[in-house]
Amino acid sequence: MNIQPIGIIHSPYKSHQDAPRQGSLSQTESVIEVFPDYADGLKGIERSYRLVILYWGDRADRGVLQSPTPFDPTIVGVFTTRSPNRPNPIAICTVKLLSHDGNTLTVVGLDALDGSPVLDIKGYSSEAANAPE
Amino acid sequence: MNIQPIGIIHSPYKSHQDAPRQGSLSQTESVIEVFPDYADGLKGIERSYRLVILYWGDRADRGVLQSPTPFDPTIVGVFTTRSPNRPNPIAICTVKLLSHDGNTLTVVGLDALDGSPVLDIKGYSSEAANAPE
Repeated sequence: MNIQPIGIIHSPYKSHQDAPRQGSLSQTESVIEVFPDYADGLKGIERSYRLVILYWGDRADRGVLQSPTPFDPTIVGVFTTRSPNRPNPIAICTVKLLSHDGNTLTVVGLDALDGSPVLDIKGYSSEAANAPE
Repeated sequence: MNIQPIGIIHSPYKSHQDAPRQGSLSQTESVIEVFPDYADGLKGIERSYRLVILYWGDRADRGVLQSPTPFDPTIVGVFTTRSPNRPNPIAICTVKLLSHDGNTLTVVGLDALDGSPVLDIKGYSSEAANAPE
């Protein structure tokens, strides 16, 4: 399956110890640099308030299928968790867009390590974020 | 970037015309078959009420960077939209889990076409779904 990064994340987080458990818990700014080949996909993005960022956890352990939960020692499958360690470490973060300048976006709420490859950027949709009751 | 599907989706949607605009708008059931190599990652998943499914839009047009919005003719970049057509067509759906039997999950709220490859399954987190205010 051929996935090409569309950009790279510049963040103050150099290791998992630095990063917040969820980006939404932090007010730290990160910069998303979109590669020139994909910059046309940003047209009009400054009108967005929230965005969904998909990035590749390039420092994740992809061999883990089960692990303890963060709050108790029960062993559960990684597909029940939000652990960064999983077979395809595609992370999802909903962020607030602060500014758009050329091919860069400054955002708040991203938990990505510095240098993480960006896979996709989507408009936020509350319909898409919530399941049927 | 080496991404291996962890499973496949069985759904009643054979084409984009059949599928709902958002899975959360539908009560249709789909079945997620997780490949045997990854089935250990499902341990304990029956205790989940909601899950986030990442799947690959294998019938998407990956060459599109700008398109009209669904509701008006303004041309915008695909990174401001939820269009299935984008350079890396990774779709996100929040679903309700109905049942877990061996390596299959029956869910409601998925908008994937029949046969779509599954990339990841995550526990739902309202923190992760919402951006900082």
